[in-house]
Amino acid sequence: MKIAMAQQNYHIGNFEANFAKIKAGIHQAKSEGADIVVFSELAVCGYPPRDFLEFSDFISRCAAVIEQIKTESAATNMAVVVGSPTVNPVVEGKDLFNSAYFIANGVVKHIAHKALLPTYDIFDEYRYFEPAHSFEVVEYKGKRIAITICEDIWNIGNENPLYTICPMDELMQQSPDFMLNLSASPFSYGHAQERLHVLKANVPRYGLPIFYVNGAGAQTEIIFDGGSVVMNDAGMVVDEMPYFKPCIRTYELAPLLQSAGKVAFDNTQHTPKIELMYQALVLGVRDYFGKLGFTKAILGLSGGIDSALVLAIAAAALGAKNVRAVLMPSQFSSEHSVSDAEKLAKNLGCPYDIIPIKPVFDSFTTTLSPQFAGTPFNIAEENLQARARGVIVMALSNKFGYILLNTSNKSEAAVGYGTLYGDMCGGLSVIGDVYKMEVYEMCKFINRNGEIIPTNIITKPPSAELRPNQKDSDSLPDYAVLDAVLYEYIERRKGPKEIIAMGFSPALVHRILRLVNITEYKRYQTPPMLRVSAKAFGMGRRMPIVAKYLS
Amino acid sequence: MKIAMAQQNYHIGNFEANFAKIKAGIHQAKSEGADIVVFSELAVCGYPPRDFLEFSDFISRCAAVIEQIKTESAATNMAVVVGSPTVNPVVEGKDLFNSAYFIANGVVKHIAHKALLPTYDIFDEYRYFEPAHSFEVVEYKGKRIAITICEDIWNIGNENPLYTICPMDELMQQSPDFMLNLSASPFSYGHAQERLHVLKANVPRYGLPIFYVNGAGAQTEIIFDGGSVVMNDAGMVVDEMPYFKPCIRTYELAPLLQSAGKVAFDNTQHTPKIELMYQALVLGVRDYFGKLGFTKAILGLSGGIDSALVLAIAAAALGAKNVRAVLMPSQFSSEHSVSDAEKLAKNLGCPYDIIPIKPVFDSFTTTLSPQFAGTPFNIAEENLQARARGVIVMALSNKFGYILLNTSNKSEAAVGYGTLYGDMCGGLSVIGDVYKMEVYEMCKFINRNGEIIPTNIITKPPSAELRPNQKDSDSLPDYAVLDAVLYEYIERRKGPKEIIAMGFSPALVHRILRLVNITEYKRYQTPPMLRVSAKAFGMGRRMPIVAKYLS
Repeated sequence: MKIAMAQQNYHIGNFEANFAKIKAGIHQAKSEGADIVVFSELAVCGYPPRDFLEFSDFISRCAAVIEQIKTESAATNMAVVVGSPTVNPVVEGKDLFNSAYFIANGVVKHIAHKALLPTYDIFDEYRYFEPAHSFEVVEYKGKRIAITICEDIWNIGNENPLYTICPMDELMQQSPDFMLNLSASPFSYGHAQERLHVLKANVPRYGLPIFYVNGAGAQTEIIFDGGSVVMNDAGMVVDEMPYFKPCIRTYELAPLLQSAGKVAFDNTQHTPKIELMYQALVLGVRDYFGKLGFTKAILGLSGGIDSALVLAIAAAALGAKNVRAVLMPSQFSSEHSVSDAEKLAKNLGCPYDIIPIKPVFDSFTTTLSPQFAGTPFNIAEENLQARARGVIVMALSNKFGYILLNTSNKSEAAVGYGTLYGDMCGGLSVIGDVYKMEVYEMCKFINRNGEIIPTNIITKPPSAELRPNQKDSDSLPDYAVLDAVLYEYIERRKGPKEIIAMGFSPALVHRILRLVNITEYKRYQTPPMLRVSAKAFGMGRRMPIVAKYLS
Repeated sequence: MKIAMAQQNYHIGNFEANFAKIKAGIHQAKSEGADIVVFSELAVCGYPPRDFLEFSDFISRCAAVIEQIKTESAATNMAVVVGSPTVNPVVEGKDLFNSAYFIANGVVKHIAHKALLPTYDIFDEYRYFEPAHSFEVVEYKGKRIAITICEDIWNIGNENPLYTICPMDELMQQSPDFMLNLSASPFSYGHAQERLHVLKANVPRYGLPIFYVNGAGAQTEIIFDGGSVVMNDAGMVVDEMPYFKPCIRTYELAPLLQSAGKVAFDNTQHTPKIELMYQALVLGVRDYFGKLGFTKAILGLSGGIDSALVLAIAAAALGAKNVRAVLMPSQFSSEHSVSDAEKLAKNLGCPYDIIPIKPVFDSFTTTLSPQFAGTPFNIAEENLQARARGVIVMALSNKFGYILLNTSNKSEAAVGYGTLYGDMCGGLSVIGDVYKMEVYEMCKFINRNGEIIPTNIITKPPSAELRPNQKDSDSLPDYAVLDAVLYEYIERRKGPKEIIAMGFSPALVHRILRLVNITEYKRYQTPPMLRVSAKAFGMGRRMPIVAKYLS
């Protein structure tokens, strides 16, 4: 028996495009001699469809795609396993299941439902789905197949405290021959390792090979990284599909069975953290544009390291010619800001403009002089500059059809070191989930084969250049310390006592945590941030604005 | 026996302030001779605490408040029933329960857990909480008390398809004498009616009086409307506490028992929809400022109806002197825009400035002339005006410590008829959940005793005035039709076929639904919108940005 795994890039709600990909996958699998082709979780509608699931029209369209897939299955004489929402026929409980159809030769032989519904971080599955109440193995061509969906295999031996059942334990009672898992498992830089860890914990427990099929593509801020895995029944990695791109491959089942005692091997990719993050961001930018039907980006290039990194990523994602950099020096900009930025744009081959903002800034201060009379230059004038720049790049965006890329990093976003409607503008935040110290590392990665980002951009002290001789270090702790404290608070959800106990100064910890909490209102209005860590700002971290806690 | 109900306004994470209110409530109840005082759901930490619940430090602080309450209970010799998160002692399942402590004379006699955890619209309770698995009546001073939490009484006779158990059915097996329900039930204009309906369905089923205690106050966009209810065992409304303000009252239990056959009465408040919405918005603005520690608002006053309404609401919430209006005419503004706006500011007694934007606008177009050369005036120049205004009001906000109020209505927000970083700026959207036709009605309500909002503002055709002779009707369908279609799509989640079947033109329906879906990216960056309907934009309506559905 041959099993094909189709790791593809779906588009939420784009039923025609998704069906076209599924159809192409079926035909490629057929041409490779496959008996079964497996697609990923909710492939027909794209993951996560969120509240579109509450529209019966949306669910009907999923069902219509399933009808089309039945036709293809019949035409190819193949079995197709594909993820789709299905209607819960029982009145009691949620309206839907998160399901996997097993369609053989045009007939639905079985529908497996997901039992473990993640409802943490970015996930809201229990908002929509009823968990599976029963489990059944499918028989096809003499083999018994255990089908699970994503999280279903993350409660190995009932050791995950979040869940009270273990679907594979249930399915094992029906003596399956191998396992299929349909996933839509979002990327974070540690996730590929976690995934392999989970698979390696499942396989020896059950002694069965597994075909784990993930999606590969970004849906707004959530990036599915591919990396689908085939493991033999001894838990050796037979294949780990490429990260961040579609891939369809067909595997013989027989060599995956009775592998115990054979020579061990491990075809796992070993990609370092920063490289993974970089590739994820490139895919995130590319898919955001592609799925919205845009081709061209614009961004403000300050001469600092953050916008430099974003320009390099965008150029990789969209092509250098499609990314326009706008240099907007003010009277407070140092000379190197323009020359460094210009050098970078030239190195990458991106078009750029130099648009000084002094006339606009002066026009605002003149207009506001009756109101501002007698007040000292302060945050209002600083923000005016950032906002003048925001208006200029948005005007170019509106005039010529660019999407503006936001260039704030995670450290800034965390402590609110940015101007709403100024440098916080943009359709997409590219590095809003990348801490400043990781920004440095990623720039070094980009320069690994020679200078692309000018060294001076990397080595000079960070500055917003909104007043004379301003430095980030005037307002913020050293980034190495800031990032370390933020990581404990954001990723690890440690409280002040715990962080102080790690050796950080109490005053510093209180100051940083307070800054994070009092700037929630700013993050509420930021663009979606490409998620590359296990805890990004946005849907995965839900905080009240008016709270008074640690603030 | 006397039971006091404490309907109060809590502040998320402000443990000191919440404890001070609870303590004051205990002492007032004591002074009124109460045996038991009942507070609302999650009173110790404020509702909804969202992901703060994932911080063990936050949970410890809740426990510390409970210790303080025990002391007050001992000092007053009273029973206190109060909502707090508690730690699930079992490893399996979620880490927390959403609980009600029953503390008598300094001792925790019982902890009841919530069983029905709403996970729809704005609610995420299953993200944090394990549902109650068992139910127990508390005995106190010879009475047996059934304690439930909010949603627990919304599955009457197991007829709510979302849930499979009915906590009161379980508790009835232990023969309680009366019911307590601790709620944090968010306002929408139909909610008070729904709540009374649910209570009136519960009481006759069980034949017990109920004390239903709600919170009263806004937490960012979510408004708790009070309206706590005491019902006798025949389902007559003995008292419905005031809406939108704190209130503590004490009731004798005896007269609430064996009421069947007595003369029927119904002390329900009957407040019309628009008045409820208006009062909710006033509270929403007041609490947003109060809880963030701000006193002064600013807004752009265009001469149109939306900003007029917001100014009136803000003046009612914060005091007219604390709301500064900024009139920012352009070359496209009609004369009446300034005169109408000025008249309104004078009627209300709000300070105002007139700041023409032409010099700033000209400065932008001059600055951009090398790039814009040869292009016609279009959306870029229109948005430039809106953004110039946004920058001016934000500069005043930063300079003088105002919070900017956003003035977009729900119809505009739905179809994306607004400029990001322009008129979509603001810390809080006051009428983002109020359709345009409701805006008209609310203005008439405000003028019910005489003209406050100048009639010309209400009667003139709506216009953004960003190009010569522009009217909203150039770009949008008639608001009456637009609002009707939006209501079906947003509130009722009807699909295109269903809406067309109601008699709307297919082309119009497709156009409107498409506009809603393709402008999701704009709503992602809008300020929080005070929620007054059953389906507001924001946390209660979660949509993917890159989706291609009906678009």
